[in-house]
Amino acid sequence: MTATKHNNLLHLNIENGVANITLDNAPVNVLSASLIKALRHLLDELSNNNDIKVIVFDSANPDFFISHVDINILEEQNILDELIKAAPDGLNIFQAVGEMLREQPQLTIVKLKGIARGGGAEFIAAADMCFASLEKGKLAQCEALMGIIPGGGATQYLSSKMTRGRALEIILGADLFDAATAEQYGWINRALPDTEIDIFVDQLAHHIADLPEGVIKTTKKVLPPVRNAEGFKSENDGWATLAFSPGTAEIMKKAMENGAQTVVGELKLEELLRSLM
Amino acid sequence: MTATKHNNLLHLNIENGVANITLDNAPVNVLSASLIKALRHLLDELSNNNDIKVIVFDSANPDFFISHVDINILEEQNILDELIKAAPDGLNIFQAVGEMLREQPQLTIVKLKGIARGGGAEFIAAADMCFASLEKGKLAQCEALMGIIPGGGATQYLSSKMTRGRALEIILGADLFDAATAEQYGWINRALPDTEIDIFVDQLAHHIADLPEGVIKTTKKVLPPVRNAEGFKSENDGWATLAFSPGTAEIMKKAMENGAQTVVGELKLEELLRSLM
Amino acid sequence: MTATKHNNLLHLNIENGVANITLDNAPVNVLSASLIKALRHLLDELSNNNDIKVIVFDSANPDFFISHVDINILEEQNILDELIKAAPDGLNIFQAVGEMLREQPQLTIVKLKGIARGGGAEFIAAADMCFASLEKGKLAQCEALMGIIPGGGATQYLSSKMTRGRALEIILGADLFDAATAEQYGWINRALPDTEIDIFVDQLAHHIADLPEGVIKTTKKVLPPVRNAEGFKSENDGWATLAFSPGTAEIMKKAMENGAQTVVGELKLEELLRSLM
Repeated sequence: MTATKHNNLLHLNIENGVANITLDNAPVNVLSASLIKALRHLLDELSNNNDIKVIVFDSANPDFFISHVDINILEEQNILDELIKAAPDGLNIFQAVGEMLREQPQLTIVKLKGIARGGGAEFIAAADMCFASLEKGKLAQCEALMGIIPGGGATQYLSSKMTRGRALEIILGADLFDAATAEQYGWINRALPDTEIDIFVDQLAHHIADLPEGVIKTTKKVLPPVRNAEGFKSENDGWATLAFSPGTAEIMKKAMENGAQTVVGELKLEELLRSLM
Repeated sequence: MTATKHNNLLHLNIENGVANITLDNAPVNVLSASLIKALRHLLDELSNNNDIKVIVFDSANPDFFISHVDINILEEQNILDELIKAAPDGLNIFQAVGEMLREQPQLTIVKLKGIARGGGAEFIAAADMCFASLEKGKLAQCEALMGIIPGGGATQYLSSKMTRGRALEIILGADLFDAATAEQYGWINRALPDTEIDIFVDQLAHHIADLPEGVIKTTKKVLPPVRNAEGFKSENDGWATLAFSPGTAEIMKKAMENGAQTVVGELKLEELLRSLM
Repeated sequence: MTATKHNNLLHLNIENGVANITLDNAPVNVLSASLIKALRHLLDELSNNNDIKVIVFDSANPDFFISHVDINILEEQNILDELIKAAPDGLNIFQAVGEMLREQPQLTIVKLKGIARGGGAEFIAAADMCFASLEKGKLAQCEALMGIIPGGGATQYLSSKMTRGRALEIILGADLFDAATAEQYGWINRALPDTEIDIFVDQLAHHIADLPEGVIKTTKKVLPPVRNAEGFKSENDGWATLAFSPGTAEIMKKAMENGAQTVVGELKLEELLRSLM
């Protein structure tokens, strides 16, 4: 096994065709521009490595997988400019994160043992599979509480996974969903007892990595992720209209002043955001 | 809070952006032409009220949400003529009920604590969300037992929510489904314990109504209800061919003679209809 | 009730509009060319019988519904040639089995009380409905362990029933799924306690067979099975590329030498195939 660090934000371990990528952006694993950049570089590198068959994502933080997009992302303007240039035509930089995952030649699996909100939940929805700890895995599209709608693919990914009524409940209810309900809604593959999830995901990843040559590639080709260009445009237009309004800027500012992006604040982010209304 | 009555069939209560509409068409809440007319007028009125963000539907009857379309609907010919004129091109008057709901600018939620069959189950499937009492919520597309197929959108709505095999089971099995199975099949959002459903739906409705301006509208725009014109035409053609056959008229007549549209008869409608075969 | 035998592989019982077809191809009910031929002849015959409304499939073997396509299928070259000629344009002979089922005018139900893998699981996915014994029903797409992908419609049927993530898990994880998970994923209609499944399916089948004339036909017309010609072509291309590789032939040969197509070997086929890697 080899272990390397990337940009101080990602740990990489490779073993028998399975690459494990551990996200590590303390204190709450925000999806910052730097983290997106580090992910993009590492995934690019792995996409040229034919020996890697499966990528498993997890988190170094026991409480958070990815809390959400960094509220201070505009402070990394140089990196943002790079990411904007790198985004495929017709996708904003957040949608480009999910679509990057979906185009990865390897099979991608998220092992979810903490909270994933906003862009973190979109990351999960874009991955090929997700298994969550029954006790600790939690997901939310919390954007509505910030005055916006999800802008990184959630409207498209959720619509492909569940009924419209459930997607509306997730986006407009904006609550933190436990893993059992996420399983029920088709948001994730399955919720598994916390004592079993490591062994389950490890075994599944290695079983898949051990498959005879060509099977993964052929299966992914026959079951391609479908990108509805109009849907992504509609999502981005809706998101952008709300995201750049003064009301949203005000909510973001108040959220930061009241504990957003700290461990304590993020553990009860819905309460925090609702208290600002 | 304001409370008003509409046409003696609907109670309206408005509180902090949430309109609660209670259906009250004793003895079993049949979907009569008068009830459809009252709903259409009230929903039209609310659609111009920007202060109302969410509409919650429930029933004054503990046993029935909407039993089904009134078997005697032809006796209200004048109102039927009005409704036919008001129906959008390409939709019959029952399909127009569901599509009216789906075009409502507010978010619509059904709180289901009794039985909903036929046109009542279609009403639920057309609403943006439905939460049902685990113990008391029940749904059925009972049309097959009357010699017809659903004609108010169920074939389209069910197909968008669940597998074809489950839609076939609901339509051809024609049994009364409990809320847990309805949740499992994706027919409703969730089944909740009867002791919790009022608080859950009330809180969800108010959370959504309290969202910053523009979020509901933008979300509904990005996740639009899709209307397959050919599907609705195919459903209507299939329904009409069977509905106006002598066999169906005979079943309806016998059903009325044997207790349909009374509380006792409707509590076990499947048994009643099967006993006529 | 009448009971007849077809080609020694199928038992047929007809009672009040319900045809029960019991598969009986000892020792493990492989889907051989002879069995496909017998099924095709019997289904053709039934399709012209207007008195039969519902077809229920089950198995004479308590452990296996259909184990999978016969690994020795090439030894029945004459029958294969016949089947190739009979397959609709654009479908391979395995895809033609599922599509034959889907075009059957009767409503088709599988009662699953044992294991169904590969082509057997595809048979189930193609039927209108499937109910499985909670304790004994098991499904797998095990093709990946043989170095191939499913080639008889599974990629298309699974994609229409569940999320892409779950279809990928089934195809690439290649494990045996219990009935409760299959229900959760939408692979089958429902998992029912083994003590209840016979009565449930029998009652459902007869309830449907007893429906007034025209209801089944109209419902199946309004909810047609959709065949995506490109999807079937893509599946066949992917399957064929892998199926005719030397690696796959080698796996098949070793599998036969190590107990495939015997009761003991098939009960733990995943273990057997993984031990060969």
